[in-house]
Amino acid sequence: MEVNFGAVFFTIYALLASCMYDGAAGKSTDKPNIIIMLMDDMGWGDLGIFGHPAKETPNLDKMAAEGILLPDFYTANPLCSPSRAALMTGRLPIRNGFYTTNQHARNGYTPQDIVGGIPDSEVLLPELLNKAGYRSKIIGKWHLGQQPQFHPLIHGFDEWFGAPNCHFGPYNNKNTPNIPVYKDAEMVGRYYEDFPIDKKTGESNLTQIYIKEALIFIEAQQKADTPFFLYWTPDATHAPLYSSKDFVGTSQRGRYGDPVRELDSGVGIILQKLRELKIDNNTFVLFTSDNGAATYNRDSGGSNGPFLCGKETTYEGGMREPAIAWWPGKINPGGVTHQLGTVMDLFTTALELAGVESPTDRIIDGKSLLPALLNNKVDPDRVVFYYRGNEMMAVRHGLYKAHYWTWTNSLQERARGVNFCQGENVTDIMTHEQTNRTLSPLLIHLGKDPGERYPIANHTQEYKTVMKTIQAIVDDHKTNMIPGDPQFNWCDSAVMNWSPPGCEKLNKCLKGPASKPYKCTWPH
Amino acid sequence: MEVNFGAVFFTIYALLASCMYDGAAGKSTDKPNIIIMLMDDMGWGDLGIFGHPAKETPNLDKMAAEGILLPDFYTANPLCSPSRAALMTGRLPIRNGFYTTNQHARNGYTPQDIVGGIPDSEVLLPELLNKAGYRSKIIGKWHLGQQPQFHPLIHGFDEWFGAPNCHFGPYNNKNTPNIPVYKDAEMVGRYYEDFPIDKKTGESNLTQIYIKEALIFIEAQQKADTPFFLYWTPDATHAPLYSSKDFVGTSQRGRYGDPVRELDSGVGIILQKLRELKIDNNTFVLFTSDNGAATYNRDSGGSNGPFLCGKETTYEGGMREPAIAWWPGKINPGGVTHQLGTVMDLFTTALELAGVESPTDRIIDGKSLLPALLNNKVDPDRVVFYYRGNEMMAVRHGLYKAHYWTWTNSLQERARGVNFCQGENVTDIMTHEQTNRTLSPLLIHLGKDPGERYPIANHTQEYKTVMKTIQAIVDDHKTNMIPGDPQFNWCDSAVMNWSPPGCEKLNKCLKGPASKPYKCTWPH
Repeated sequence: MEVNFGAVFFTIYALLASCMYDGAAGKSTDKPNIIIMLMDDMGWGDLGIFGHPAKETPNLDKMAAEGILLPDFYTANPLCSPSRAALMTGRLPIRNGFYTTNQHARNGYTPQDIVGGIPDSEVLLPELLNKAGYRSKIIGKWHLGQQPQFHPLIHGFDEWFGAPNCHFGPYNNKNTPNIPVYKDAEMVGRYYEDFPIDKKTGESNLTQIYIKEALIFIEAQQKADTPFFLYWTPDATHAPLYSSKDFVGTSQRGRYGDPVRELDSGVGIILQKLRELKIDNNTFVLFTSDNGAATYNRDSGGSNGPFLCGKETTYEGGMREPAIAWWPGKINPGGVTHQLGTVMDLFTTALELAGVESPTDRIIDGKSLLPALLNNKVDPDRVVFYYRGNEMMAVRHGLYKAHYWTWTNSLQERARGVNFCQGENVTDIMTHEQTNRTLSPLLIHLGKDPGERYPIANHTQEYKTVMKTIQAIVDDHKTNMIPGDPQFNWCDSAVMNWSPPGCEKLNKCLKGPASKPYKCTWPH
Repeated sequence: MEVNFGAVFFTIYALLASCMYDGAAGKSTDKPNIIIMLMDDMGWGDLGIFGHPAKETPNLDKMAAEGILLPDFYTANPLCSPSRAALMTGRLPIRNGFYTTNQHARNGYTPQDIVGGIPDSEVLLPELLNKAGYRSKIIGKWHLGQQPQFHPLIHGFDEWFGAPNCHFGPYNNKNTPNIPVYKDAEMVGRYYEDFPIDKKTGESNLTQIYIKEALIFIEAQQKADTPFFLYWTPDATHAPLYSSKDFVGTSQRGRYGDPVRELDSGVGIILQKLRELKIDNNTFVLFTSDNGAATYNRDSGGSNGPFLCGKETTYEGGMREPAIAWWPGKINPGGVTHQLGTVMDLFTTALELAGVESPTDRIIDGKSLLPALLNNKVDPDRVVFYYRGNEMMAVRHGLYKAHYWTWTNSLQERARGVNFCQGENVTDIMTHEQTNRTLSPLLIHLGKDPGERYPIANHTQEYKTVMKTIQAIVDDHKTNMIPGDPQFNWCDSAVMNWSPPGCEKLNKCLKGPASKPYKCTWPH
């Protein structure tokens, strides 16, 4: 039994802080600090507060008790790179180029041999925050391109500790190099060499490093009285799962639960640091994840709670994310908002917090969440588009979701044991072939049917009325859509991380093959 | 957006109350009041605190914040009558007779034509509490037998407002009588006649009556300084769903969510009354449900969260229940206990609270939850047996669950549209025929795999070690099992509620058919 005495004291603390704070609100939130905590493959159902029966996230549950819960928050794509590019640009991946046209409706991302990355033409959040005097740091996984021209410091961040890729490997450094870990613009080592991950035991101290990096950065900015943007994006819940010694084997959930516990602990440590430095009342913190939990097998995947399927799919399990906003003294404790929101809204929300104007020379999909978070004003007209690669698969408006295309994954892949919807079989809604529903979309009422099991019959008045509204939204969306230059069409082994910046100093440069571009293949 | 200011103030209140209370603990908890709130067909996943995305249970969520959550709490049977008989007797239905031997592993209950009911030989909780000076009342559904000899006042309750059956109907009073509603030993009307339920709109004020009855009873006992046991068991979440005017159409979850909201509101009102009367520190309240949510269709069923299947089955969705214990000043606020528990434990827990000895002349399956709830002491050796009718289908010990028999429902029933596992299809684990696994039970690690999708291979050391322990438990259980006289074997239209006690005064007596007993048929 875990007794959460702390929650009570901190709830009281938050309340008192709230009372004390009101008078000074105008001044001290002039340039609030912004922290976005983006988890990797963590599912909506992985948090205690979102219903995981293990209830092993006391710090996140406390964060929710002190902050506000967003149960209707989404990513922009059910896979990491496009989701992260959408967060950084406030734009759908179809606009910022994080998709492929090689195949229809396939999820692409940025593996080591990807030629593309975040285009220079895109304006990233830290670039804009820079204008308002913010100092920005990314800690953890970037995934917006492997080649140096795509790296964080080229696109607005002042500091970086982490890697351009997931921690896949170990590789032999002949066919494939081990992924480099960067400090700012130069590598400081490679995964499995200088930054060990024991794939057998699941032990690695990476998350502890990421926690420490966060504390150092926060303390330095507080000391310098500089407003900051921290993008904290550890990847311990992405397979191969890892956690540090103190957490290995401590979860009732096994290998996946250990890193959940460690990340939860990290969230608690970071929030506590804000309190200690007395900048909690001036720091907006948003916790979420990049896509739904992978549900391929028992030991490496998380939980999407009551939602259908998971990562890679545009069912709710693939795209609905756990989300908590926290800002003592500004956000009323213990609230819930059913405002529809997406990771792209974090772009616009952060800009509004910093007092920076949103770009006007392009379509920005994000909208500010502040009216909902601070003033209880819910915009009922918000829309969520569910994309898979170059295809708009589904749309949510209000409590209704219309599937224009349905696909889980192919029967060939299933035969190989890859199943994004383990144990689920909803006839018609789950299809093993890409199925075009455009002429008669499948309509779901997510309030009554969050698990997407009962489509509304298309002869009903409800269907006709709702689809009229949704179809108009879709028509408008498609009419105004100017797709960006697709970044996931070309691959080349030569662009892998053979000789990253800084490799000479470490004697870590490797010889790669000659350039020989080929079209990337995307199975999902 | 709903902002839950109240939770904070009450958390503070509870904390202060706790501080002030300590000194007087010995005296004022001498005979604490006991309230068991038993919902009907409400699922584990229906509460906000247990992860429902609609988050429409602010009062229950607050109750959890002030009390302790039991995520590993179970019923004794996935259907109402046996579950309720188990709660009242502290004994498995196989012992107290609430099962059938007409067919193997079929769920029986107490429809109107059932001949059997709770045997006189069973000792019920209110009978025992009587000895300690408690006054007991049941408000709502009884379901321990239709004939007068089985009614609550014959078995220890001092007061009753409610019915012996679910609110099925309306009937024509020729083939089947409408169900009578009782005040104590006599009927005061019938459903659909004197107690209307509009099946078209779902409107009925029954829950409001049940709330009011609770308040009147509580106030009277407080005034008389009499310790009380209130068994509050409204049935609004059992199909046909109903809610009162103020709640109809208010939930984003539709027809099912409206009564959830009303019951949640009722819980809040009752707890608030305890506070107002200043007996909250002397009242132990336990909220739970009688079985998993029905998941047959979109509009009439609740949510079992991440768990497999629902009502009628022995998968987790059928038997794991939402549970919250609340006792300001005694139970530390905001806690979670992973103590395995069942509704039968409420029998033993209540007796311990009242200082009454548990019967020693029979096997009592319940164990006190007080060490876990009050003192953080978890007993790791607790066992949960999952029965369906006369068969032990599964066993849980620690985080492991072994399925000895598996069955969802028959293919014939599925063909008729009855499906207890809508949208789910876990090969092997879900079987459409009763499948005997006794020689090699399916073993699940519920920590890693709460959705029961990945049985542990039976050649592994883990399987062998765990099954050795579980098999010894099962052997012991079966060796010591003396089944009770089965109550669900005989049915007879003559025993229906034609002329219940009190019908003469109301001119509500009906003429039933002559007695013609037949063997009951149980399809599930």
